[in-house]
Amino acid sequence: MAATAAAALTPATPLRFKPYSTLRFLSFYSKNPISPRLFPPLPRRPVSFHSTIPRKRCFCSVISAALQSGEMKKTEFPEKKVGEMGNTVGEFRKKLKIADIKGGPDEGLNRVGQTVVVMGWVRTLRVQSSVTFLEVNDGSSLSNMQCVMNSDAEGYDQVESGLIATSASIWVQGTLVASQGSKQKVELKVEKVVVVGKSDPSYPIQKKRVSREFLRTKAHLRPRTNTFGAVARVRNALAYATHKFFQENGFVWISSPIITASDCEGAGEQFCVTTLIPSSREAADSPVDAIPNTKNGLIDWSQDFFGKPAFLTVSGQLNAETYATALSDVYTFGPTFRAENSNTSRHLAEFWMIEPELAFADLDDDMACATAYLQYVVRHVLDNCKEDMEFFNTWIEKGVIDRLNDVAEKDFVQLTYTDAIGLLLKAKKKFEFPVLLVYFLFKPT
Amino acid sequence: MAATAAAALTPATPLRFKPYSTLRFLSFYSKNPISPRLFPPLPRRPVSFHSTIPRKRCFCSVISAALQSGEMKKTEFPEKKVGEMGNTVGEFRKKLKIADIKGGPDEGLNRVGQTVVVMGWVRTLRVQSSVTFLEVNDGSSLSNMQCVMNSDAEGYDQVESGLIATSASIWVQGTLVASQGSKQKVELKVEKVVVVGKSDPSYPIQKKRVSREFLRTKAHLRPRTNTFGAVARVRNALAYATHKFFQENGFVWISSPIITASDCEGAGEQFCVTTLIPSSREAADSPVDAIPNTKNGLIDWSQDFFGKPAFLTVSGQLNAETYATALSDVYTFGPTFRAENSNTSRHLAEFWMIEPELAFADLDDDMACATAYLQYVVRHVLDNCKEDMEFFNTWIEKGVIDRLNDVAEKDFVQLTYTDAIGLLLKAKKKFEFPVLLVYFLFKPT
Repeated sequence: MAATAAAALTPATPLRFKPYSTLRFLSFYSKNPISPRLFPPLPRRPVSFHSTIPRKRCFCSVISAALQSGEMKKTEFPEKKVGEMGNTVGEFRKKLKIADIKGGPDEGLNRVGQTVVVMGWVRTLRVQSSVTFLEVNDGSSLSNMQCVMNSDAEGYDQVESGLIATSASIWVQGTLVASQGSKQKVELKVEKVVVVGKSDPSYPIQKKRVSREFLRTKAHLRPRTNTFGAVARVRNALAYATHKFFQENGFVWISSPIITASDCEGAGEQFCVTTLIPSSREAADSPVDAIPNTKNGLIDWSQDFFGKPAFLTVSGQLNAETYATALSDVYTFGPTFRAENSNTSRHLAEFWMIEPELAFADLDDDMACATAYLQYVVRHVLDNCKEDMEFFNTWIEKGVIDRLNDVAEKDFVQLTYTDAIGLLLKAKKKFEFPVLLVYFLFKPT
Repeated sequence: MAATAAAALTPATPLRFKPYSTLRFLSFYSKNPISPRLFPPLPRRPVSFHSTIPRKRCFCSVISAALQSGEMKKTEFPEKKVGEMGNTVGEFRKKLKIADIKGGPDEGLNRVGQTVVVMGWVRTLRVQSSVTFLEVNDGSSLSNMQCVMNSDAEGYDQVESGLIATSASIWVQGTLVASQGSKQKVELKVEKVVVVGKSDPSYPIQKKRVSREFLRTKAHLRPRTNTFGAVARVRNALAYATHKFFQENGFVWISSPIITASDCEGAGEQFCVTTLIPSSREAADSPVDAIPNTKNGLIDWSQDFFGKPAFLTVSGQLNAETYATALSDVYTFGPTFRAENSNTSRHLAEFWMIEPELAFADLDDDMACATAYLQYVVRHVLDNCKEDMEFFNTWIEKGVIDRLNDVAEKDFVQLTYTDAIGLLLKAKKKFEFPVLLVYFLFKPT
């Protein structure tokens, strides 16, 4: 578990994501005082055993070299009692985030007068004659913390020198005060600001709106946008609500195998998983005839990792069923794969799927479970992601909150296939495929 | 979401896991009255669009055939209002499970006198002169519900005819009474029993202990054993506690990509994911020269699914870092893959990994988070899986509960590398690799 430093990534420099690379990057660029508690010197990573010492005889040469050099004798391991060594690992405390401050029923007014620290990324900076406004976002919520700064605040020189710019990561200490603005109830009167990672004017996501196609080319930075941040928070809420619903109802989560030799109900084309083709570092130039083959030119699966063809799962149902007939009610929630080459929003090569399996249940129980689940997760998101849902309602899909409220509150109806077709025929809507055609194709026999 | 019927699988018959296959199997074998509420007739599944109608022109032929046959004109869609169609989907109710009955502080005594229904699988059957004891397990807990049956109970003839045997799935209604036995506080005085799925004496997991190697050959039945049931419940508790810990501490769950073109910190060999090799149905006989190649005999990756080589992820860290530098604290929890061909208990080809990424954190915060997480999940399992942990403590690893209590309650200490080696040198234990050798190989420089 590596602590990721909150570095502001300068896009012009190529990024290498290796252990501590963000930190290295940071310490190279930062010329500003950094709180010593924040970033103590990092220990070097021990070298990988596998990469440097592939064979047993190496052990001996390392040891004998150490012995000959006398280094081993020099090493002293002082006689300490256990109690004399090291310190107790510190207590883990939940960080105070902007959502914690502004998310309460009084939107932070209960904390007015408190000294708090906010750590996050600068969204905008407005320098006015007497005062500077910094909008800081820490990803815990869509809305920022407005930080108000006078020229006597410690670290104000970093505003003047341009170090504090959009997307710089900063540490701000100040006092919460009631805000004069209409957009928020509280704001932070800054006492001290520290630039943790600087940014510069070439940062590609400035205040103006950018297209999702453009953001696709900046995949490492798009989580900092309103849309992707909101999607991440809502997706997280949906996933957690899924676990909560099933756990509260006595289901057991099953991690069904991802690599499998089974197909399942012909759900779709499968990806092959193999080591017969060289790994990433050499794959680009791999000759076909390097793939092991039998005398008659067939692929020699006996030389593959599992000794036979293996595939990515298209469904965990097969495995979940064996557990449902032992544990009563189970669910899977994991990634699933389809190698269907249709580029639509409804066909994904990789997606996370929930597959509940109920024992001693009939189709009525099944429908009751499915609708209860849907209503539970929709209600959870409407209650816990209000700000994000309002953002979607305004900018992405008008009316989505009303529609989801309907799903969460109205009764679901079960009706016959013929009645469903009848409803569609009466609907004043043009469908891509004629309803009667669909009726004949899918009619239960 | 298909409801899985609780069929007792007769092992001599080959199993085909297709939709409703367990149910079909069941209805074929069962000659006993089955509660009509339990298993109403199932609707036929609509045929798969893809498998039967691959091309657009088929639409027309289906429609025109229907028109010519006059079938289309015959179809009537009665004019109903929405309110007249169908019924409201029923309420989803959490099933009363054996764990709910016996899991409370008074182990079920508070429910004495209640009429309850238990659905599960027969573990053992003891027919005595005046009374029959049935041990029924529903997978919600390790311990069974002891069901006591007189010959006047409805359905008792199924005991006499041998239908109720080990692993048969049954539905039992009765009254909870205080138990005379020392092993449980309550038992069920049976009023009615229904065999949902029968079993027979060839069922391979009878009362005597069987080896895990043997169970490996009965993978579809081993979830019904004590060991695999306990493992599933503890694994489920660990997974849920993992989500709870991070969610309660403001982390956002990120589902990092499983299929990826990135390597990550050289963590291990990668599996290649490809569609250049035919899918499961034809893979066994695939000729090497059917793999697309370029003029100079290299694999033509442009014809692969993603147009370039793709692999299974060895770590979600790269992606989690981009989200941590936007949302502050995130974690991944998903499957990870290593194609290292070493068959040890520490090298798995597929495993679920948790990767927290903390922004604005240093190594001390990192250690505090790691130890708090460990203590949280260990405490959660000790509190919520008592019976299963006692089973492990008795049968799998003596002392495991004491050891885990230590982990959950004692302070973690951080110490220097040299102090750690000093401790190991003093330990009266023979290690596979000499401690001094390890010291020189991994010594921080």
